[in-house]
Amino acid sequence: MSTLQIAGGTVLFADMNVRKADVLVDRGTGRIVEIGDTARGDDVLDASDGLVIPGLVNAHCHAPMTLLRGYADDKPLDAWLREDIWPTEAELETADIVAGTRLGAVELLENGVTALGDMYFEVPEVADALARAGLRARVGHGIVTVGKDEAAARTDFETGLEVARELDGMAEGRITTALMPHSLTTVDGELLSEYVPRAREAGISLHYHANETRDEVEPIVEERGVRPLEYADGLGMLEADDFIAHGVHIDRTEIELLAERGVGVAHCPASNMKLASGIAPVQEMLDAGVTVGIGTDGAASNNDLDALDELRDAAMVGKLRADDASAVSAPDVVRAATAGGAELLGFDTGRIETGALADLAVIDLEAPHLTPAHDLVSHLAYAARGSDVRHTVVDGDVVVRDREVLTLDEAAVRRDAERHAESLIARAESNR
Amino acid sequence: MSTLQIAGGTVLFADMNVRKADVLVDRGTGRIVEIGDTARGDDVLDASDGLVIPGLVNAHCHAPMTLLRGYADDKPLDAWLREDIWPTEAELETADIVAGTRLGAVELLENGVTALGDMYFEVPEVADALARAGLRARVGHGIVTVGKDEAAARTDFETGLEVARELDGMAEGRITTALMPHSLTTVDGELLSEYVPRAREAGISLHYHANETRDEVEPIVEERGVRPLEYADGLGMLEADDFIAHGVHIDRTEIELLAERGVGVAHCPASNMKLASGIAPVQEMLDAGVTVGIGTDGAASNNDLDALDELRDAAMVGKLRADDASAVSAPDVVRAATAGGAELLGFDTGRIETGALADLAVIDLEAPHLTPAHDLVSHLAYAARGSDVRHTVVDGDVVVRDREVLTLDEAAVRRDAERHAESLIARAESNR
Repeated sequence: MSTLQIAGGTVLFADMNVRKADVLVDRGTGRIVEIGDTARGDDVLDASDGLVIPGLVNAHCHAPMTLLRGYADDKPLDAWLREDIWPTEAELETADIVAGTRLGAVELLENGVTALGDMYFEVPEVADALARAGLRARVGHGIVTVGKDEAAARTDFETGLEVARELDGMAEGRITTALMPHSLTTVDGELLSEYVPRAREAGISLHYHANETRDEVEPIVEERGVRPLEYADGLGMLEADDFIAHGVHIDRTEIELLAERGVGVAHCPASNMKLASGIAPVQEMLDAGVTVGIGTDGAASNNDLDALDELRDAAMVGKLRADDASAVSAPDVVRAATAGGAELLGFDTGRIETGALADLAVIDLEAPHLTPAHDLVSHLAYAARGSDVRHTVVDGDVVVRDREVLTLDEAAVRRDAERHAESLIARAESNR
Repeated sequence: MSTLQIAGGTVLFADMNVRKADVLVDRGTGRIVEIGDTARGDDVLDASDGLVIPGLVNAHCHAPMTLLRGYADDKPLDAWLREDIWPTEAELETADIVAGTRLGAVELLENGVTALGDMYFEVPEVADALARAGLRARVGHGIVTVGKDEAAARTDFETGLEVARELDGMAEGRITTALMPHSLTTVDGELLSEYVPRAREAGISLHYHANETRDEVEPIVEERGVRPLEYADGLGMLEADDFIAHGVHIDRTEIELLAERGVGVAHCPASNMKLASGIAPVQEMLDAGVTVGIGTDGAASNNDLDALDELRDAAMVGKLRADDASAVSAPDVVRAATAGGAELLGFDTGRIETGALADLAVIDLEAPHLTPAHDLVSHLAYAARGSDVRHTVVDGDVVVRDREVLTLDEAAVRRDAERHAESLIARAESNR
């Protein structure tokens, strides 16, 4: 057995207690085999003065959109999509998507993210780039049918099904898939009622945007006389392995429906603020027993992929929404960003425990903003930032060591991203 | 003339345009003397691949409270103050306050903050610690009269006046002062009507918490039949050099009153979220012509002093409050955190311009989360974090060079803070 020892750190356990311990990992299986006074491993990762945490799970992302970071800000969702994002995305070539994905991957790894949920186009290339970067990901093709004729709409669904079937289990299981219809208002209901059962027959789960803005809720209520998630339920889109993104404008009935069906929510607080979509009722979801994960959404509406900052945002806005400073506490958001996200994505990670997959990060505690050490869970939730991540381990492999990404050449990735972004914007603007 | 040259960077100007330029500083006067292709300075600060920005102004802080970071979270303001903060503060000794101030100062400088507004106790020691750290600060003694007999209340006011008179102009003008009654509900109105005129006679301006929570507004409206800021105006507490903190629960009339009187607001978005106080109507204030600065508040309700994160928070919640993604834009928050804050504190800084005091920071742009470079103002507002600060300059002096604080021994400051925090908490808990 070839082993990796994470040595000398303070370990954060699933019950939110912390304790000095070494973590020993079997590099063959990628699983944690021992926690405590372990024997020396074949490779040793120094975690002294560090907090060893489960790798952060970014439950909802569009990694290739990292290429559009800061390209269009301070606009509402609809205008932002129609005037800036969609026209630019129409010009995207495969090489742009790969460049954006690699840029996103470097940022995610440096920020201690070990797994993500990702919806985009050209998913085989996205999945390949994420896998080569060393990440774990549940990916899917974002199916959109509005503005398409039936043939094109069907092609999009077929692509979605094919991607979900073909890519599932690649990179020794680090890549899994879902059918990802974009949202309940951008995908045709008739086609959903035809393709969702086909996905189920193939054992494929679903992930989609739901109840993100008021504009997504009202048309469904008016047209169909039911809430969006009741409509989704009628289409068979709320099964136990499915998960939705956002859930901002969601009512009591819908929260209970999610709880009954065992469907979790990827909460994206920063994106929901930046696009003025609103604040998801996270405390109500937690109270109802809904599994909540945390996502950055794409960098174009965030504008970073700093999962630690997102965790802070989640705690902050959760209190505003509940009008209660005790709501969405530090332990709540730490759980959501680790075990919660892992549950949504269906990975056997998100906790430091013998037998679990070894996805973890080491946070450097030797910093003024993490002093004094009154409460490390509080520091993780409110004061730590991505730049505090010293090491990142995925599947038992060290992917970031001493702040350096080992799987990609960061400088080359940045240069490449700049080049692709420039040429993409030039093409998009010449078409206006 | 001994000069400092900030060389090879891209400079952010007050009109939010950026341009490659060197900045030359006269170290004697501490002022910017030339911008452009400057001659070589006696000392050169490498700003290549960096964005040279005006130093960030943290308009409202309680630096010594950095010692209580993460000590008590997830509680509403009133319970948090009564059960945790005040009993612990009652045990504070001068050495604790100095240790907390130094810890706060290291963090502020590393995060590119060059000036702050600070309200606390033992202000001569706080001011001395901030001045030695190299910071610029407007300080005051937090006057509280509730729960005190008249003699003690008067003593508090006298201390407030004395501090404002004695410390003003120290450290070659880097330290200025204000009379700082804690808030309109924690300070007796009769005494305010006596002492505010005394402050005015001595040429002293005011800074206080106002309209932070609903609980601060209702008693005044019920008892006096006017809004809190109308009450303050009646007491002569709204003059042109005064500024208030928070302004969350503030109505149209009060916003207009602030605009008429020329009184600015130190907006503290993170603290207002964390304590579930609410969201200040920043876009309305800006529309009315009110000067807005940004503050972290104390680290105990934040929990960090990362001014770049605060700037992001301000833009984010500003959109939520306005229900408009175009509200409180990236340029708006960058202006608030620089020129806006400088105007509130009354310092001739907050802009990179010939003749202005040389308070500035250099942001390292060579990072995945700041790539691609579509829009540097957007990156500053939404994606940059305190750890991106490479250098900090205050009053023409380099206080942080290549991420190292030169004015304090960071490791010693952290050790000292840990020791004082431990003993403080032990004393406070033994008294329960």
